[in-house]
Amino acid sequence: MSDESQELGITESKSHKPGEWYAEVVQKAGLADYAPMGGFIVTKPRGYALWERIQDALDDWFKATGVDNVYFPMFIPESYLEREKDIVEGFDPEVAWVTQGGHDELEERLAVRPTSESIIAPFMAEWTRSHRDLPLRLNQWCSVVRWEATETKPFFRTKEFMWQEGHTAHATDEGAWEEVWTRLDQYERVYEEVLAVPVLRGKKPDHDKFPGADTTTTVEALMPDGKSVQGATSHNLGQSFAEAFDITFADEDEAEQTAHTTSWGLSWRALGALIMTHSDDQGLVLPPTIAPTQVVVVPIWQEETRDDVLEYANALTAELEEAGVRVDLDDRDERNPGFKFNEHELNGVPLRLEIGPHEVEDEQVTLVHRPDNENAVADREDIAAAVDDHLETVFEKLYDAAEENLTENVREAYTPEEILGTIGKHGGYVKTSWCGDPACEEAIKEKIAAEIVMQPLDDEGGSSAGAVPEPDHDDCGVCGEPADEIAYFAKSY
Amino acid sequence: MSDESQELGITESKSHKPGEWYAEVVQKAGLADYAPMGGFIVTKPRGYALWERIQDALDDWFKATGVDNVYFPMFIPESYLEREKDIVEGFDPEVAWVTQGGHDELEERLAVRPTSESIIAPFMAEWTRSHRDLPLRLNQWCSVVRWEATETKPFFRTKEFMWQEGHTAHATDEGAWEEVWTRLDQYERVYEEVLAVPVLRGKKPDHDKFPGADTTTTVEALMPDGKSVQGATSHNLGQSFAEAFDITFADEDEAEQTAHTTSWGLSWRALGALIMTHSDDQGLVLPPTIAPTQVVVVPIWQEETRDDVLEYANALTAELEEAGVRVDLDDRDERNPGFKFNEHELNGVPLRLEIGPHEVEDEQVTLVHRPDNENAVADREDIAAAVDDHLETVFEKLYDAAEENLTENVREAYTPEEILGTIGKHGGYVKTSWCGDPACEEAIKEKIAAEIVMQPLDDEGGSSAGAVPEPDHDDCGVCGEPADEIAYFAKSY
Ligand SMILES: [Zn+2]
Ligand SMILES: [Zn+2]
Repeated sequence: MSDESQELGITESKSHKPGEWYAEVVQKAGLADYAPMGGFIVTKPRGYALWERIQDALDDWFKATGVDNVYFPMFIPESYLEREKDIVEGFDPEVAWVTQGGHDELEERLAVRPTSESIIAPFMAEWTRSHRDLPLRLNQWCSVVRWEATETKPFFRTKEFMWQEGHTAHATDEGAWEEVWTRLDQYERVYEEVLAVPVLRGKKPDHDKFPGADTTTTVEALMPDGKSVQGATSHNLGQSFAEAFDITFADEDEAEQTAHTTSWGLSWRALGALIMTHSDDQGLVLPPTIAPTQVVVVPIWQEETRDDVLEYANALTAELEEAGVRVDLDDRDERNPGFKFNEHELNGVPLRLEIGPHEVEDEQVTLVHRPDNENAVADREDIAAAVDDHLETVFEKLYDAAEENLTENVREAYTPEEILGTIGKHGGYVKTSWCGDPACEEAIKEKIAAEIVMQPLDDEGGSSAGAVPEPDHDDCGVCGEPADEIAYFAKSY
Repeated sequence: MSDESQELGITESKSHKPGEWYAEVVQKAGLADYAPMGGFIVTKPRGYALWERIQDALDDWFKATGVDNVYFPMFIPESYLEREKDIVEGFDPEVAWVTQGGHDELEERLAVRPTSESIIAPFMAEWTRSHRDLPLRLNQWCSVVRWEATETKPFFRTKEFMWQEGHTAHATDEGAWEEVWTRLDQYERVYEEVLAVPVLRGKKPDHDKFPGADTTTTVEALMPDGKSVQGATSHNLGQSFAEAFDITFADEDEAEQTAHTTSWGLSWRALGALIMTHSDDQGLVLPPTIAPTQVVVVPIWQEETRDDVLEYANALTAELEEAGVRVDLDDRDERNPGFKFNEHELNGVPLRLEIGPHEVEDEQVTLVHRPDNENAVADREDIAAAVDDHLETVFEKLYDAAEENLTENVREAYTPEEILGTIGKHGGYVKTSWCGDPACEEAIKEKIAAEIVMQPLDDEGGSSAGAVPEPDHDDCGVCGEPADEIAYFAKSY
């Protein structure tokens, strides 16, 4: 048994070796395994269940805001990929190519989709004739492939990853901006309300936009190791794709106009951010909003109390199930309570209910919070309401801790030394003034691998782009030249 | 307007040119378009919505019967594909190969999955240690690629198609059989209860099993053109994959045993069967169980009655929505009622509610059934209940017609001439006695392109294989040699 316990438990430390610790949590909590080909993972039942909850939430919100799901082929002919020049330049180095079908060489190579603008846009062109056909809002849940040669990190860096990609066309720039903000709002909401991960909103600097986009907006989450995760992006593609693929429409006066398009995506990287944010040296920690099992009931008995305890635990479990709680009763004979506690901690069950002879006798229930082991005793009679309250408290604990980490770790610095020193010492975000020259980012990146992950925006939302506010200092924090933008530097995933 | 009407309407005839008619319905009802690469299609919003309803139903049933969703990589290394010899032989001629990643040639070719046994089985081996780990039931919703060189037929024949593939491991043959039948039951149920398509159950002849399987069970649906569609298959893989991939476990006595595995899949071919079965020369016909829009309300007004009619129609729509009906109000100003009727007929909305000044005055509603234009008038007061009844009636009409077609088209024949003549004249299934020699199937196939699509089983279900019952005639219907099996010949999709 002790061997098995050791094998089950987390051995790495989150604070000392976050990379190794993360990989261990992912594997030991049964979320994913490494595939035989480098760069690919296998998503196991508990990992996939998390992705399904994100899908369910977003998919409902998408549908409630006019989006239709579709499915486009996983392959894109090379000639289609070449029609938008920024897309080719941006993705060509990391495309996986199908060159053989059965025993034959293909006449034209097919790209395994790295993103689907190039195959979706021509159909948007075909389906858009009149202003009445707009807005056109399409989404697909699928996987894409990008042949990057970096080290594999489940959910963060894999050659194939799951995501959703939304693609829309609008009659006006205003319509496109409303779309961009609607989706960014929904991404923020899924992070904050489902994953209990607060985010910062803003845009990417121009030199780091999506290929072909006018503007890339982003939600950024700060991990406990001080690095930023690009949580999801929503792009205003302007008219570049509409021009390349001829997405035009007759307006109300029958005049031909070129459409404005957007695209937006959230990948299973959101799972990486979730795991990294809340989990600890005992294993996975999940907010109840996403946990496949929210509550586990663990009966604790001796031979003579067995029947009473199990009967009590069974009735309790049934009542919670009835009340809509995702609850499991762990009545395995072959495991002792200590083993069960460890296992459910490792797997991130947010709330544990312990039922022993005392609880039966006093008509009570002992509740233990996963994040901090806080205990409480509740009356059996009102247990469903008590469980709801405690689940909410667990969510708040997780959210508040993440929010505190985020708030504490936005600092200002206005010289290269200060910027480097602050990131070096604390990690997190360093807000500075910026002249707009990518060379200034490069100077910081070379020394400490931090880059501009986000530029905050004023007056965003609605039907316009928003604007990067004036910085507090007039000079670029890196080069000292006149600056009129604010930039957030951080190391990132 | 008349041009547009013509463009909207179906021009081909279901009875005279079923192939052309089918292609026209799929495109004009907005279900799918052809992709630029031959063999691929784009699934449009209305088509994808149908697939989502099938997914929702099956996914719920799978989860309620112990299945966990997972996601495995879309690529399989060639060396993995080669580990089970029947899989290689079966699929190698139709594999799409990725040979380049970015600018580099890959050291080992990667197959785009044609089916995932070869990548899932090694992980099942890793995750199965003790009898307590069994049964292990995994499923994934994904697409697969098979590079067949046949003509494209949306949902029936495409190089990439969407499906679910279930993969399970069991301690015993009995456990595997229970699994096979559970899934075949669920497939039968989705055809009958969701798609209103009755099916026949049975097994494939041995020479037409899934590569590597002991037994392939199938549900077969008969199309109005007399051809059979293999609706879904559930395979008992015996121990061949477990042996090839080393899926073993310690039994209760700590002795090592080899597992028994199954796999089972349903593809978007189910959509093909749905469309082909019920639709007509006016366009798509859908049972209310799967229709994205079950009811459309069409207001019919003159200038002076406009306000009253619209108010009445709006209230009616809201009430139906409240009652859980998927209802749309078509209040477009720029279209006349006749145009709207045609469009909703084309798109397969099962029930149309017409609201004119008379209905308003009499506090009534006129209901029109899509399949046969049958009319009824119902009191406004009890409209939600009336709509429910009529939707049920529409479902029954569709199911009954399909069932009648199936029942009428199972015939018996016991000489080659009779078999050929019966299929030639009527299509449908011909039941005969069979010696078991594939050469007898070949003889029929050569002359009329019909094959043995199914062998009925006695005593199936439960934990055993069932048995092909004794035929009524002692001699093979083709060669005249002694026969101890029953076989159903049919042309098939
Ligand atoms: Zn500068
Ligand atoms: Zn014979």
